[in-house]
Amino acid sequence: MLRELADLDRVAQLPNAEVLADDELTGSILIEASRLAEGVLEPLNATGDRDGARWSAEGVKATPGFKDAYRQYVEGGWNRLAMPTEYGGQGMPTLLSAAVREIFIGANKAFCMCPGLTDAAVHALMVGADDALKAYYLPRLVSGEWTATMNLTEPQAGSDVGALRTRAVPAGDGTYRIFGQKIFISFGDHDLTDNIVHLVLARVAGAPEGSKGISLFVVPKFLPQEGWQGARNDVQCAGIEHKVGNHGSPTCTMVYGDAGEGAVAWLLGGENMGLQTMFVMMNQARILVGMEGVALSERAYRQALAYARERVQGRAAEGSALPVPIIRHPDVRRMLLSMRSQTEAMRALGYMLAGALDLADGHSDPMVRQERQDFVDLMIPIFKGWATETAVEVTRTSVQIHGGMGYVTESGASQPLRDVLIAPIYEGTTGIQANDLIARKVLRDGGASLNCWLAEVDRTLAETTAQPALADLASRLGEGVASVRMVAQWIAQAQRERPLDVLAVAVPFLKLAGIVAGGWLMTRAALAASRLLDAGDAGESESFLRAKLASARFYATHVLPQAGALAVTAMNGSDATLDEWALQA
Amino acid sequence: MLRELADLDRVAQLPNAEVLADDELTGSILIEASRLAEGVLEPLNATGDRDGARWSAEGVKATPGFKDAYRQYVEGGWNRLAMPTEYGGQGMPTLLSAAVREIFIGANKAFCMCPGLTDAAVHALMVGADDALKAYYLPRLVSGEWTATMNLTEPQAGSDVGALRTRAVPAGDGTYRIFGQKIFISFGDHDLTDNIVHLVLARVAGAPEGSKGISLFVVPKFLPQEGWQGARNDVQCAGIEHKVGNHGSPTCTMVYGDAGEGAVAWLLGGENMGLQTMFVMMNQARILVGMEGVALSERAYRQALAYARERVQGRAAEGSALPVPIIRHPDVRRMLLSMRSQTEAMRALGYMLAGALDLADGHSDPMVRQERQDFVDLMIPIFKGWATETAVEVTRTSVQIHGGMGYVTESGASQPLRDVLIAPIYEGTTGIQANDLIARKVLRDGGASLNCWLAEVDRTLAETTAQPALADLASRLGEGVASVRMVAQWIAQAQRERPLDVLAVAVPFLKLAGIVAGGWLMTRAALAASRLLDAGDAGESESFLRAKLASARFYATHVLPQAGALAVTAMNGSDATLDEWALQA
Repeated sequence: MLRELADLDRVAQLPNAEVLADDELTGSILIEASRLAEGVLEPLNATGDRDGARWSAEGVKATPGFKDAYRQYVEGGWNRLAMPTEYGGQGMPTLLSAAVREIFIGANKAFCMCPGLTDAAVHALMVGADDALKAYYLPRLVSGEWTATMNLTEPQAGSDVGALRTRAVPAGDGTYRIFGQKIFISFGDHDLTDNIVHLVLARVAGAPEGSKGISLFVVPKFLPQEGWQGARNDVQCAGIEHKVGNHGSPTCTMVYGDAGEGAVAWLLGGENMGLQTMFVMMNQARILVGMEGVALSERAYRQALAYARERVQGRAAEGSALPVPIIRHPDVRRMLLSMRSQTEAMRALGYMLAGALDLADGHSDPMVRQERQDFVDLMIPIFKGWATETAVEVTRTSVQIHGGMGYVTESGASQPLRDVLIAPIYEGTTGIQANDLIARKVLRDGGASLNCWLAEVDRTLAETTAQPALADLASRLGEGVASVRMVAQWIAQAQRERPLDVLAVAVPFLKLAGIVAGGWLMTRAALAASRLLDAGDAGESESFLRAKLASARFYATHVLPQAGALAVTAMNGSDATLDEWALQA
Repeated sequence: MLRELADLDRVAQLPNAEVLADDELTGSILIEASRLAEGVLEPLNATGDRDGARWSAEGVKATPGFKDAYRQYVEGGWNRLAMPTEYGGQGMPTLLSAAVREIFIGANKAFCMCPGLTDAAVHALMVGADDALKAYYLPRLVSGEWTATMNLTEPQAGSDVGALRTRAVPAGDGTYRIFGQKIFISFGDHDLTDNIVHLVLARVAGAPEGSKGISLFVVPKFLPQEGWQGARNDVQCAGIEHKVGNHGSPTCTMVYGDAGEGAVAWLLGGENMGLQTMFVMMNQARILVGMEGVALSERAYRQALAYARERVQGRAAEGSALPVPIIRHPDVRRMLLSMRSQTEAMRALGYMLAGALDLADGHSDPMVRQERQDFVDLMIPIFKGWATETAVEVTRTSVQIHGGMGYVTESGASQPLRDVLIAPIYEGTTGIQANDLIARKVLRDGGASLNCWLAEVDRTLAETTAQPALADLASRLGEGVASVRMVAQWIAQAQRERPLDVLAVAVPFLKLAGIVAGGWLMTRAALAASRLLDAGDAGESESFLRAKLASARFYATHVLPQAGALAVTAMNGSDATLDEWALQA
């Protein structure tokens, strides 16, 4: 997948990405990651679900075992895989870190929230902090000695960050004092490290209304002092949420300045520049959440597959004297393949996006950088929205395959579903991704980046049509891409006269685009598998390659046909949605 | 819905169904039920989720408050609504009891498991028990003094009941002794009543293998004795499950005969007739589980609607100075309407089936009885499978509308999803419903009952086409019904040469049939609403009727288009599913 679909060869030529040119080295990194995932993180996954983080007035205690796991994670250098080399990070390409993170998240999503947010904070500091802040915070965060959090949400400011009310008052010495409450702060408090660095969005008195008046601040739990740890700052965790899943990740209410003087804070970037700095990280964060969908789908698939091979129940439909493992039942196969093929499609898009981000950031040719950046900008809302929505369906299918045992907590079958249920919500709900896709991605450039992508799909289509053995795949993909084009044209027209109509079907359009993007990459996978099989030297890979072909065919016949239905909905479904009577009692 | 879609007028002419002829009386029963649901059951719903039933060696204690709620439920006579009049029941038609039960389940599903199972057991006793057993057990069960359970599942015998191993040994005095373990027994033990009557499937020594050698027994917790309660029988609750939802309903492991002598049991019906007696109740039980899907979807819709009206976030898309309630955002409307319209469609089919069951049981004309019975037999697997699968999607949409709060347990937004997740599994998984639909319903009678239903849809279609204002609905329904016909023909052909192919796409066919059945009833609802509006005397009902029209239009444009996609999958999706390489590593 890395090589055939995610542009590994091009990414490997970037500075700092030489590791990818060495198959053995890349492989050994992934294997080492799997070792930590299987040996350390995975055994704590059920523990975290059962025995989640605990709050007390003295602070939050992480799930037993998490502290030691964090130590091993940091000792292995995994926390700094994608962090800047000038501060001790390894500066690996996003393509590699995305693959590594998928492995870790699949083993223990709740645990991964902590290093994931620290990583995001390090990138924000790299973008927005002055040299003094960088010099003080970055070495400690990169080494893993401290962790960091992102503080955006307030009770009245969720999707609409611009509505936040937390205040920042200049103290006259260049520092500020913060007053306010933040909610839903992952790992806002814990006992994994001695200090925690909070990045906090707040409003300086007199700042413009809404999102243009928001600034970003650094608020450490313990104030700076020689010898690394000073006095306690005025920031408290007032409680943690009881949630449907992710119990191992404490979701904190953070109170700033409750003692009266305010929490001491340093400005990051200029005043009122907070959202710009945050947006720099948004693409990375949204790819990461999409990868959560991939990772938990894969986890659910493996659990369901193992159960279906083990669980003996009922006779085989083609006739058998004795009961058979349920994997022999055609409908169980259908469910497993719907999980597998959709997970492969999502992973392909996630990896491809990660590689595109690397090329957009680091390629020597500015034309390539721009072209890849346009692709990233277009695809990120699609990937985030489609992969997380699909992951809910995929993880739920595992519960269904487990039957009655799926409903029993101890079987572990429900945990991926419960853990992933937040993914279509945080970092921008699916509705917000869809609005972003239409307003900022499809319409703003007059459809240029969309058409550029569709031309890429057309090339795949032409290649596939040329292979008689893959004619069935070509025909389904052709219908899918025609649906996207048709709806995109409808959107461009409708937007002028009836912009609300377009918003009413933004999510069906996003799903349509996601399904077709997945179908495009599954077709490319089938082309590659078919080429390697035809070359006649597949060897041990033969069953892997034949499975790829079957998976692509399954996707083409069970998933791609939805594209046509979604196109009908997108072009006809607005009137009823906006009907003023529709939601009356 | 009762009158226009569910054949209320015909059902009201049946013996014991006169209540339905009196609108005011029917209305007052539904209002009384709502009063108990809102005042007593609903406040205990979150309690049950948080503070579920507790096991100890002395027995299971129900959630605090459930015992008193049960007393009020029984005092109101609600438990005996559908029970036989000769033993003190009210013998109400299923159409009315289905509507009443929807109200109660929507308020507190876990609580309703207990009277629901007792009701099923009473019907089994009516069918299979001799006069002595009837005389002893039925008055106590009908009065609500005792409750009952159904014991089918064993660790190795879930979907395949025929694999059960619990033994029954004749004691020589007409009674038997039972030895074995049963799992997943809802309300297998509790403290709501003094005695519990277990109906237990077991195998008498020498009985034929598989499902033909299964007998049904009555095993009371306390043995019969003058003065109502005798010695403790040898049946114990060995533990209860931790589950994803339904915490208020104890899911018990029941151990029979562990002390050595066996649990004293009475045969119900003849030896080896156990499954026949059970099957008598199956239709009722499957409609009831489908109605659980309806009830929890309605609950989720109301929660999401209330939240969307209250939660203020973001500006209106059409421009507004101040933040607006999120119900103003087009995508939130889309989500609410997808919940509402699908819930209405499911409810319509559930009510219609309940009415058809009444007519099949009690109509004076044997032709009508047969015709309605054929409809019931065809539609029950469709309703059970489609309504429960759709309910998972609908209840999850409520979590999405609630945003971050949806993920927080205390908001209550996740409970309907967690509670309903078992519905596509118990009383026959969706896969089993789909196999039943194809093998026993569509193929066995050569498609006769399916064609009979499709002819009914054609009549609705003709009526709709005649109304220019409803042309859009007619066109979508027409495409849907054509899809069902096309796939049914494919199934009839493929069955001969490739029966496995048919099983591989049985669930897509079931979903297709469910979606079209829902679209048919939504179109009938639109016809009725349009007729009543055209009559010009809608009065206070105007907004209700206009909402019905909008809901039908939403369903036609957002749900019915999936029919075409499912038809493509059904007719092309088997090969990849059955590909021998597909599930290789």
